[in-house]
This record gives sequence, structure tokens and C-alpha cells, in this order.
Amino acid sequence: MTPFKLTDQLVADIQSLIAHQEDGQLRTMLKEFHYADVAEIVNELDTEEATYLIKLLDSEKTSDILTELDEDVREEILNNLSPKEIAGEIGELDTDDAADIIGELPKEIIKEVISEIEDKDHAKDIVDLLRYDEDSAGGLMAKELVKVNENWTVTKCVRQMRIQAENVTRVHSIYVVDDEEKLKGRLSLKDLLTVSTETHISEIYIPKVDYVNVNEKPEEVAKIMSKYDLEAIPVVDEINRLVGRITIDDIVDVIREEADKDYQMAAGISQDVEADDSIWELTRARLPWLILGLFGGGAAAMIMGGFEEMFSKYTVLFLFTPLIAAMAGNVGVQSSAIIVQGLANDDIKGSVGSRLIKEMLLALLNGIILAALLLLFTWVWKGSFNTALAISVSLIAVIVVAGFIGTFTPLFLHKRGIDPAIATGPFITTSNDIFGILIYFWIAKLILGI
Amino acid sequence: MTPFKLTDQLVADIQSLIAHQEDGQLRTMLKEFHYADVAEIVNELDTEEATYLIKLLDSEKTSDILTELDEDVREEILNNLSPKEIAGEIGELDTDDAADIIGELPKEIIKEVISEIEDKDHAKDIVDLLRYDEDSAGGLMAKELVKVNENWTVTKCVRQMRIQAENVTRVHSIYVVDDEEKLKGRLSLKDLLTVSTETHISEIYIPKVDYVNVNEKPEEVAKIMSKYDLEAIPVVDEINRLVGRITIDDIVDVIREEADKDYQMAAGISQDVEADDSIWELTRARLPWLILGLFGGGAAAMIMGGFEEMFSKYTVLFLFTPLIAAMAGNVGVQSSAIIVQGLANDDIKGSVGSRLIKEMLLALLNGIILAALLLLFTWVWKGSFNTALAISVSLIAVIVVAGFIGTFTPLFLHKRGIDPAIATGPFITTSNDIFGILIYFWIAKLILGI
Repeated sequence: MTPFKLTDQLVADIQSLIAHQEDGQLRTMLKEFHYADVAEIVNELDTEEATYLIKLLDSEKTSDILTELDEDVREEILNNLSPKEIAGEIGELDTDDAADIIGELPKEIIKEVISEIEDKDHAKDIVDLLRYDEDSAGGLMAKELVKVNENWTVTKCVRQMRIQAENVTRVHSIYVVDDEEKLKGRLSLKDLLTVSTETHISEIYIPKVDYVNVNEKPEEVAKIMSKYDLEAIPVVDEINRLVGRITIDDIVDVIREEADKDYQMAAGISQDVEADDSIWELTRARLPWLILGLFGGGAAAMIMGGFEEMFSKYTVLFLFTPLIAAMAGNVGVQSSAIIVQGLANDDIKGSVGSRLIKEMLLALLNGIILAALLLLFTWVWKGSFNTALAISVSLIAVIVVAGFIGTFTPLFLHKRGIDPAIATGPFITTSNDIFGILIYFWIAKLILGI
Repeated sequence: MTPFKLTDQLVADIQSLIAHQEDGQLRTMLKEFHYADVAEIVNELDTEEATYLIKLLDSEKTSDILTELDEDVREEILNNLSPKEIAGEIGELDTDDAADIIGELPKEIIKEVISEIEDKDHAKDIVDLLRYDEDSAGGLMAKELVKVNENWTVTKCVRQMRIQAENVTRVHSIYVVDDEEKLKGRLSLKDLLTVSTETHISEIYIPKVDYVNVNEKPEEVAKIMSKYDLEAIPVVDEINRLVGRITIDDIVDVIREEADKDYQMAAGISQDVEADDSIWELTRARLPWLILGLFGGGAAAMIMGGFEEMFSKYTVLFLFTPLIAAMAGNVGVQSSAIIVQGLANDDIKGSVGSRLIKEMLLALLNGIILAALLLLFTWVWKGSFNTALAISVSLIAVIVVAGFIGTFTPLFLHKRGIDPAIATGPFITTSNDIFGILIYFWIAKLILGI
């Protein structure tokens, strides 16, 4: 495959073809591209041009393009389409993608679009899916799956499977349910083909099957599917009725989004912005964390103000305050990051107490090594061993406390059911700045006997 | 599915059964668990116990357990097995997992293990795979796939497919090659079943097929497969010969590892440690970044030392140095994180110049808002408008420069072919601390006319 490469030239060519309404050439050219590639092109066009393209191409392709577009671009294009046109696109999509797109529409249009969908069963499935929280297995699943009743014979089962498979892009498993639609197990195609046609499914199905509840969190579903290497998993409701199926491609998206979110949180960016968003959107995502940092810095300044009487004699103490703040912040972020990641991967075993003791031993070890270096540096630079010793010992205390706060905070948040990822980044650096400066001056004062 | 939960009680029970050599009970109990769950249990046992279990259970299950174990646990267990026993486990695995495990063994044992593998074709495939760099498509792929020659008739094709499919856990696609093994396309099962048995494959295959080169980076393979929603992708060598296949479950692991690595880098942790690693391993991963921070702090102290003559009159300037360092660090991390993430997701379009201008405008906007808050705070606290103004204006300059450095560094590293993720976290906070302090005092001095 020559990999597709989005170039300015390509976008300019497409724009020129649109401007000259060269419909034939556009169709031929875009037919060669995968819908995910066309979506990348459309993301670069203005709304008018994008709408033109969407109306020009077959709805079989454009519906897939719509699912791959940036959310804001899609919203603008759909604004330019009539409910009937939107329904046409939706009709081509699997129920999960269809429900995702419909869920983004303004409420007053949703009803109209749904009433315009020709396949009434498809419309019914989509309406069912709209009820689930986006942040749950129900919000991820599709209605397309192959299911057979345990009381059917092999003959009936094969006939029904053929009909059902029509609507399913890729059949991963054949699920077995009872008369009440409750999930009983799955069927091996091989077994199905090697028994007599009058055998009942109940005699040959495999009762062992992984499944998730419709209320399960997407991250949990992702963990289960990747741990057990599953390509699809059935979803059941509260009374164990089979209501849908989640496939691995959706889970790949969940894993990516989850990772992006944690990474942004650690960097002090409220979730869900991209480099190409507007300055205003980026400011909204970043400013709150910076203001938090400002308050922290203000608090640190006031603490230092309280030690102002030491200024004239121990100026050097004040020269190291950025170093102290930086070390407290770095140690805090390291400790919290490893806990956050461990929690995300279910790697954290043992008690909170032993975890804290380990982290403080680790911080102590690191602190002693760093303090030795700092002692040497300050002693050589400023000539006073006593001051150098006071600064270095304070550094050890600061690092141990920073390690404690960095470890304790995410564990505590997690216990309380709050996403521990919020505890990394600016949150931990700011609180550690304040505690660090306070401990530093307090211990230095004690040692120097002021 | 009642989700599996690893408890101390469960581990203790297993340990007690091992101690009393209750083989029958152990077998019955563990038969119920998925191999990934048994691996979690084995990770908690000591080497003796773990080896006992591995020798006790069927090699069909233990081979799968081995692939799921922590690397250090697996290494210890394999140390306790003879080459013949290891070969027995390897023989049960797909070629990709087999090659991964053999690749971890000491060199002198590898040859012995391979010579003990009974299926000589399997051994040959594994040897082939060992040649590829772990960090490439070749290092990820498996040899198990279904391929047919374009010159075969449908009859021959179906017969050959049956034989090949025996070794393939899940057939995602049927690949078509020519006499020189070059990848030509893929085959639709439906087409195969609806044409006459004497038709040649060359007449019915689909020439459009996604593939990757064996030297492609795993991250690139992950991008392609997740963009195009592929569950498997064929791998070709330099002259386009079909040499293997990569499945989505391996890609899920790649995505997770990549995300973990970037997250740890941003937090100042050299890659590949977990919360449960030893204090020594954790220190090795964390200390280098802390020493970097120490040097930065030392440099900042020396810079501040250069402005010591301002101490007596403008003490307040020194109180805000932790705030300045924190803001420079936070803005730098925000800017670099969004670039690193954009680069990872191929979201960064447009020129470096326009990207820098945008980031600096954004920093300017944030800076002005933050400076206004700081001005008010300092003015009220210290009473001197002039000093407050000097500090606030300096803050704006610091933030703009921090935004510039945070944006420029990852873009520059990426252009040079270096992983930009290294530019987040301690690296950027440390350099921004230094520049921030320097700019802050320099501008404040200018404004206050000292």
C-alpha cells in the first residue's frame, strides 16, 4: 500500500475541482481513496465545499466518511443537510455509529431524522441505543450480531443465521439465547456443521462465554477485551438479556482516548483539545490549571515573606527556592504518575500503608543522593558548610514529603471513586511547591538555629 | 461473566495446595480459570511454586500462561525448565509469541531449544522471525496465515486452505500471492464459493489490499490498522513477498505500551517501570531526571545570585521566584504536551512558523489574564504599584517565552528524528525554570530602572 499522505497540494486540487464543479473527475478521484482518507481531506475544506462533496458522493461512502470526521466539521456539514438527507446517511451505518451521530444532533431534529429512516427495525435499534449513557458499554455497543435460540434445530439455526448475517459486517461469534433472550453461550461453527440437522442447539452450544454488563465502564470493557484477547464481546442487560455487541475497533478508540486524556491531565490540560483547536478553546482548557499554579505561587510567596527576617544573613537560602519547588514538583509528579498508571493497569497490589512506606524509602534514597550533590555544590559555591548542610538536609525532608503526597493523593482519590489522573500535573506540583517551601524554610531555620 | 478477581486469599489457597502437593485439586481448580487469570496468580508466587504449577498443568494451557506472565517471572521459570521442556511449551504457541519468548532466552540455550522443537516447519518459522528487529512490523508479525496462489483453481485453493487453516487460530483474510510469493491481493470467501470449481484464482481475487512493510515501525502499523479499522494486516518484505501477518490484539498491546511510555516520559520516569518494581529499579528510572532538575535549580540559583544587589530594596521580587518557575514550567509542559500528542496522532498540519505564532498568541492571552491577577494580588499585598507592575509584566514575558520553548523543542526534535516525548516533563520544566528566572529578573530590572 502506498500510504495515503494528506498534502496541501491535494487539498488545493480538490478545492479547485469543487470550484469548477468537475463532478465526474471528483468522483473518479475520490473513489480511489479509503473513506478514512477522504475524511482527512474533508476536515481541511470549508463547510460549503465539504457539504458539496458529501452530497456528490454515494451515501454508502459518505456515511462512513461522516463517522471519521472531526466532530465540529461533522456538525457543520449536518447543519447543511435536511433531516431526510441525514436519515439517508444514517441508514447506511451500523447502529452504534448511527446512534453516535444522531446523539450529536440538536434534540428537535433527532425525532425528524429518525422518522425519515426507511428501515424501521434499524430505526428502532438506534432509538434503543440512544438511551444508554455514552460512557458505558451500552453507549459503545452495536445491535448488529448473530444470535440463535437454544431450542432451534440446526436446520432452522443455519437458515436464521444467513438472514441475520446479512446485516453484520463481520461475524465474530454466534451467540445462543433462551426464549427470554437471556445469553446462554456461544456456538462453534465447526460443531454446527458436523452434527445432524435435527440436533437442537441446546445440545451443542458452549456455555462458557465472556460478556459485559450494559452499565460497565468503557475502560473496564477495554481491560477485559485486551486481557483476554477478544475481538468482540456480547453485552447483556441487568437481567442477563443479550442486547448488543462491542467489537475491538471501538475498543482501540477507547484505549487511545483514555491514554490521551490521562496524558493531557498530567500536563495540565482539561481533556479533549487538539493542537488545531482555536486559541479560545485552548485557553479554556489550559488557563484554569495556570490560575491554580498562580495561587500556589502566591501562597509560596507569602510563606517566604514570613521568613523575611532571615533575608540579610541567609540570602543563599532564598536563591534555592526555585530548586526546592522544582524538586518537590518533580518527585510528586513521578510518584503520582506511577500510581495513576498502576491503577489504570490494575497493577497496584498490597496495602496503602506498605505502598506509602515503599515510596518514602525510595524518596529517602533519592533524596540522600541529591542532597549529597547539592551539599557539595553549595559548599564550593558559597563556602559555608553549615548553610550548605541546612539546605541539603531540608531538601531530603522536602523530597520525602513530596513522595508521600504524590503517592497518597491518587490512592486517596481512587478510594473515593474520583479519577486519580486529576492528581498528577499542576495539582500535585502546586501543592508540593507550597509544602516544599514551607518545610524547607522551617527545617533550615531549625538547623541554623535562627 | 463474574469477573476474575485476584485476592490474597486465592493466592494463599493455591500456595497451600502446592505445599501439600494436591495435584488433582490444583488441576480442577485452575482448569476453571482463563490462562490470563492463571498468569496473574503465577506472578504472585515464588519461582519454586510457579515452576511446580507450570510443570503440573497441560502444556497447551501453560504455554499461553507463559506469554501472559511478567517478563521477570517468566525468565525465572524458564531458568528452571530444561531446553526440552521449553521446546514443548514453544511448540504449542503461535510463531510470534514463540519468537518473543525464545528471544528472551540466553543465547547459548536458544539453539538447544530450537533443535528440540518437534515440528520442524514451526521451528523454521520461529528462526525466521528471530531475525527481525523487535521494534518493527517483522518483530510483531506471526507466520500463521492463509495464502493461496493466483494460478490455482478454486478446487485446489479450497483444499490447500483447509490444510493451512489448521494452524491458524482465527482466519481474518485469505491472501493471494504469485509464484514468487509476492502479495497480489485477497480473496472473498463468498466469491470463492459462488464460482465454478475450475475457475483460476487470478480471475476472482480482489487486488486492493492494505499491507505494511516488515521494517515499518509498530506505531505506524498501529496507526494504519486503527485508522482503517483492520483486524489483521499482511506484512511484506522489501521485494513485496508476503512474509507474515499482524493481528489487532498485538496492536492493542503496542498502543497501550506506547501510551504508557509517553506518559512516563512526561512524568520524568525512564520507560518500563511499574509500581511493583524494586526500589533500586525505580531509582534508576527516576533519579536521572531529578539530577537534571537539580542542575536546573543550581543554575537558577546562580542566576539569582547575579541579581543579589537588588535584594535589599526589592525583596518582593525574590518571593515570587517559585511562582515564576512554576508558571514557566506549567506553560512549557502544556505547550509541549499538546504538540507531542498532535505528532503522535498525525494531527499537526501547517508550517512550524504558524504553529509558533499561534502558540505565542495563546501564551500572550493567558499571560495577560494571569498577569492582571498577579498585579492585583501583589499591589494589595505589598502596596507598591510599580513593583507589582514590574513583576506582572515580567510574568507575561516569561509565559510567552515558555510557550515558545515548549512548542519549538518537540517540533525540532521530531524534525531531527528524535522522539519528541522526551521534551515533555522535567526536560522542559528545567530549561524553562532557568530561562524564566533569567527573563524575569532581567525585565523587572529594566522596568524598575535599577
